[in-house]
Amino acid sequence: MDLKVYLEERRGEVNRALEAYLPAVRGPAFRVTQAMHYSLFAGGKRLRPILCLAAAEAVGGDRGEVLPVACALEMIHTYSLIHDDLPAMDDDDLRRGRPTCHKQFDEATAILAGDGLLTEAFHTLAAAAVRDEGREGVMLEVIRLVADAAGFQGMVGGQMLDLLAEGRQVTLKELETIHRHKTGALLTAAVRAGALVGGGSRAAVTALTDYGAKFGLAFQITDDLLDVEGSAAEMGKAPGMDEKRRKATYPAVLGLAATRQWAQNLVAAAIAALQSLEERAEPLRELARYLLVRRS
Amino acid sequence: MDLKVYLEERRGEVNRALEAYLPAVRGPAFRVTQAMHYSLFAGGKRLRPILCLAAAEAVGGDRGEVLPVACALEMIHTYSLIHDDLPAMDDDDLRRGRPTCHKQFDEATAILAGDGLLTEAFHTLAAAAVRDEGREGVMLEVIRLVADAAGFQGMVGGQMLDLLAEGRQVTLKELETIHRHKTGALLTAAVRAGALVGGGSRAAVTALTDYGAKFGLAFQITDDLLDVEGSAAEMGKAPGMDEKRRKATYPAVLGLAATRQWAQNLVAAAIAALQSLEERAEPLRELARYLLVRRS
Repeated sequence: MDLKVYLEERRGEVNRALEAYLPAVRGPAFRVTQAMHYSLFAGGKRLRPILCLAAAEAVGGDRGEVLPVACALEMIHTYSLIHDDLPAMDDDDLRRGRPTCHKQFDEATAILAGDGLLTEAFHTLAAAAVRDEGREGVMLEVIRLVADAAGFQGMVGGQMLDLLAEGRQVTLKELETIHRHKTGALLTAAVRAGALVGGGSRAAVTALTDYGAKFGLAFQITDDLLDVEGSAAEMGKAPGMDEKRRKATYPAVLGLAATRQWAQNLVAAAIAALQSLEERAEPLRELARYLLVRRS
Repeated sequence: MDLKVYLEERRGEVNRALEAYLPAVRGPAFRVTQAMHYSLFAGGKRLRPILCLAAAEAVGGDRGEVLPVACALEMIHTYSLIHDDLPAMDDDDLRRGRPTCHKQFDEATAILAGDGLLTEAFHTLAAAAVRDEGREGVMLEVIRLVADAAGFQGMVGGQMLDLLAEGRQVTLKELETIHRHKTGALLTAAVRAGALVGGGSRAAVTALTDYGAKFGLAFQITDDLLDVEGSAAEMGKAPGMDEKRRKATYPAVLGLAATRQWAQNLVAAAIAALQSLEERAEPLRELARYLLVRRS
């Protein structure tokens, strides 16, 4: 399979669906919907939605059915970026080469845009099931697992831990805890939600969740590597920022060579988790391999 | 009936349930759960949960069944207060006589605590239905209506409009739009959600939603009156703040006498909406009457 073509196709599907959920101007408070739209269409890779769609495909599910869930995941991811970029948090002016939401609009609008996207994500999830009678229970389960991954036991908790760790030496164990919460939880939830909505068997859902957890950690590790090795043009932001801020990273704790080796091991383990799944899981395998060669 | 006793009892029920949902210290990122807990137990009146419980009672529903929904509404209300108080928004140092969340903790923690509460609210809603097989569809409907009331078409949009209106003259129509979004939507959703989960007939749900909309507007108008007429001790914040900030208020647009008269008319209309409901709706009637005499 050609991963590049696959990613382009899926990205297009997700973008069209997101555009339908969130027209640029809607309602009297159009400034906040404008800001939501601005950040949602700021050139994201759509990794979480694509993982979700690919997991549904891997169990023979219907992509159209899982598309709203995929969109909700991207809304949650985008909200977290908007809030993380705020002056009180990471204070970032650029994201993917464009002004961050609070720079393009203002701080209050950015806070509200994040809040709006998070809320709209749950609306989208709750509205998704209606087309599909008798499976409301599955959608409630998906809402619970997405909320778990996004909330204080997941992403919100991870960002808190990340802020608390800034400027001090952390152990490898602490670093893993931060990333499992901050990025791993939502990536894992994306895969698991796709498997559930796709109608996967219990064993398949477990295998895919395992893949998701390993993928999530490998993603963060290769992200840290990119920050050391990447160029500004490739990444749309200045490299070396993590070190400048004394953010905890894997290369800082483990060294470059050991970090690279660990990423390779994790990708192998993620692929191994998919053993029981057939050809249909090939996109997920390719996505895992891609982590080791990606430049952005 | 004795409204004071009724409110105390319900408040106790809600507080116990909230305490079970959100222990002060939980998970590794306990700083953010501490902040969530701090604001959730900052002496709120629990008006939205009580409206929700009373609406369920009014249709003969089971209070225990609707309690998670009531708690979720309070989490959403609390999140909105935390974010509204932020320096970039209303920049308030005190709320109910205590330091606001970002004053007690810091700005980043307050943003995350709000995000955490909003997310936990949807988790609570999605987890509520599990006890109650066959009614998952109702809970998905409740999640949709709560998300609508909280999101860019409701509360988030209202706060945006409010910020945009600061410092300039607004018309009565604009003021109504702001408040219908900012406070009215969630109050209405609280009553409607209670009626739905309580198992109300279509006619009863419609009547209660109508009550909720009128109650919501009357609540905001009497809130504006309190800001003019109340004392700091009664309110836990400085009176006259709206005028100082040149915030749009009903007394500023309509004058005091006309504002008082309008509040009375709305309360009468809210009570009239409950005509088809029997004795069981008495707490809701009393709650509406209470708006006209409340001092905080």
